[in-house]
Amino acid sequence: MGIENNHKLIVNCLPLTESEKAQFTRAARGVPQEFVGDSTQRGSMNWSARIPKEFRASVTAIIGNVPPEECSQCPRLEWLQTWSAGVDKYQRPDVLQPGSMLTNASGAYGQSVSEHMFAMMWALMKNLHVYAGNQANADWTDAGRALSPSGMTALVIGTGDIGSHFARLCKSVGMETIGVRRNPSVEAEGIDHTIGFESLEQALPYADVVAMSVPSTPATHHLLNADRLALLKPEALVLNAGRGDAIDSEALAAALTGNELRGAGLDVTEPEPLPADSPLWHEPRCLITPHVAGGNHLEVTERRIIAIALGNVRCYANGQSLDNRMPLKG
Amino acid sequence: MGIENNHKLIVNCLPLTESEKAQFTRAARGVPQEFVGDSTQRGSMNWSARIPKEFRASVTAIIGNVPPEECSQCPRLEWLQTWSAGVDKYQRPDVLQPGSMLTNASGAYGQSVSEHMFAMMWALMKNLHVYAGNQANADWTDAGRALSPSGMTALVIGTGDIGSHFARLCKSVGMETIGVRRNPSVEAEGIDHTIGFESLEQALPYADVVAMSVPSTPATHHLLNADRLALLKPEALVLNAGRGDAIDSEALAAALTGNELRGAGLDVTEPEPLPADSPLWHEPRCLITPHVAGGNHLEVTERRIIAIALGNVRCYANGQSLDNRMPLKG
Repeated sequence: MGIENNHKLIVNCLPLTESEKAQFTRAARGVPQEFVGDSTQRGSMNWSARIPKEFRASVTAIIGNVPPEECSQCPRLEWLQTWSAGVDKYQRPDVLQPGSMLTNASGAYGQSVSEHMFAMMWALMKNLHVYAGNQANADWTDAGRALSPSGMTALVIGTGDIGSHFARLCKSVGMETIGVRRNPSVEAEGIDHTIGFESLEQALPYADVVAMSVPSTPATHHLLNADRLALLKPEALVLNAGRGDAIDSEALAAALTGNELRGAGLDVTEPEPLPADSPLWHEPRCLITPHVAGGNHLEVTERRIIAIALGNVRCYANGQSLDNRMPLKG
Repeated sequence: MGIENNHKLIVNCLPLTESEKAQFTRAARGVPQEFVGDSTQRGSMNWSARIPKEFRASVTAIIGNVPPEECSQCPRLEWLQTWSAGVDKYQRPDVLQPGSMLTNASGAYGQSVSEHMFAMMWALMKNLHVYAGNQANADWTDAGRALSPSGMTALVIGTGDIGSHFARLCKSVGMETIGVRRNPSVEAEGIDHTIGFESLEQALPYADVVAMSVPSTPATHHLLNADRLALLKPEALVLNAGRGDAIDSEALAAALTGNELRGAGLDVTEPEPLPADSPLWHEPRCLITPHVAGGNHLEVTERRIIAIALGNVRCYANGQSLDNRMPLKG
């Protein structure tokens, strides 16, 4: 291992504290590691990463979301660990060499994104978005009936880290959960019943809340379209914190305006930022947040990203297989 | 019982369905009962009740929040069942005769009010009130760090029906709960630790969320004043869904403006409606709702009010003691 590890070089772009750097150094077991992160970014919403020019020839492993074009300038690079869950820009051809390892921070964001969706659900049920919108006008007007989640059914589309965590929150307040995933034989915590995407139409009429956290793929583009929205109860809520294009925005706006849905909570839109002329901005049944469910909005997310990277540095140094492997494309 | 019950007359002002009227008739076991409610009020936010003039001389029991002055026009009245939880206007002298029975609908509102407080808590933690307020300007701006309730401590001031239900919701999402009540030896479901009001100051520095649902009494007036607000963490949230005057509004506004608190969610204010010139309307850390946590905002509340009244009609007809007795004053 000694000789092999001496041929490795980790460039670590995480914004670490001194004691965390010491942990990474111990985990690397003699593999050289350069800490180039900006610790002042800790606690900020945006971390940035660059590979200093002097390390590009020798770096074998990068921790951080560096610009994809810099990866292709590192001929010995064999592993990239991102701090994001999404890695599509690194999966494109000519970014990483064939045979390289790409690992993401999936698992770090589930709590943050699912809690944000859960908060949007409660706000919509209690009309809080309406009251908050009225507040600038000192408007003391009753917005009418509220809903209780107790006894309701959530249809959780996508039962990964986010969907499973959301389902557990729903169950904790007395809801039932139906999960929709590609392979319905795979169980997920918090999901009472799992169905495949081919059964989506049959399940939509039973949903009180539809919670979407699917990635952007050709298969999920406009997954919730006009025909499927029409299958929902008029009192149903739609939540989306995955990718904006999983819902047909025009069809959603029409359904909300036409009283065919109780409300929608969107943390992701199509496109982003949502254009100022989108009717969704002014739709009183719609609550829009600017793609903030994940990111580093919770402190615990930062700690989980660092823990995932730390575990993988240990595996890398020991020649063990890495967690959170993602495929390359092309 | 036959002769005694023939001297009774119930005037029932609830907005009932035909099948519910049949239930009340059975429960009354031969006691005459006049149904004067307006069933079209079912599902509306405001129920109203009047005692028709022809029944005022003979009525012995009223179900409904009739104008207090009408009670004093009913010389044989021995029982008033309200559909509200608050009964202060019926406790005043000269409304009910000494020895009359006053019963309220306590227990019907706990779910509705506690869920509203819980929704406000989540909205404040995830900055949803800020995003909803920005929406009219098509503003796609990140409002910064969010909080998670997981692992936090809720200080629940008032551990009756509402406080206990709120505490159970908090525990379901991983919070700890401290209850504050007059007699700390009385346990309440959902409360991990109970303390008396005399220990409030010691507990405030530990609270991440302060949830208030105390009635308006001389003892609760400005319970949360400037000195006590100053004991809270700068990241703490304050929620109030009991009575507005339990918080010193000026002190709260000053604490919010001065960054001494993360936020406040107020369903009750001092006075109500909150005057248009109150600084709280324009305080970005404050979410205001117009006293809508309770009322008939949840359908289940209506059903519970009717169930409480039905049970008491049965007791009244059988000469048994009534539930939810409230004292008269003066």
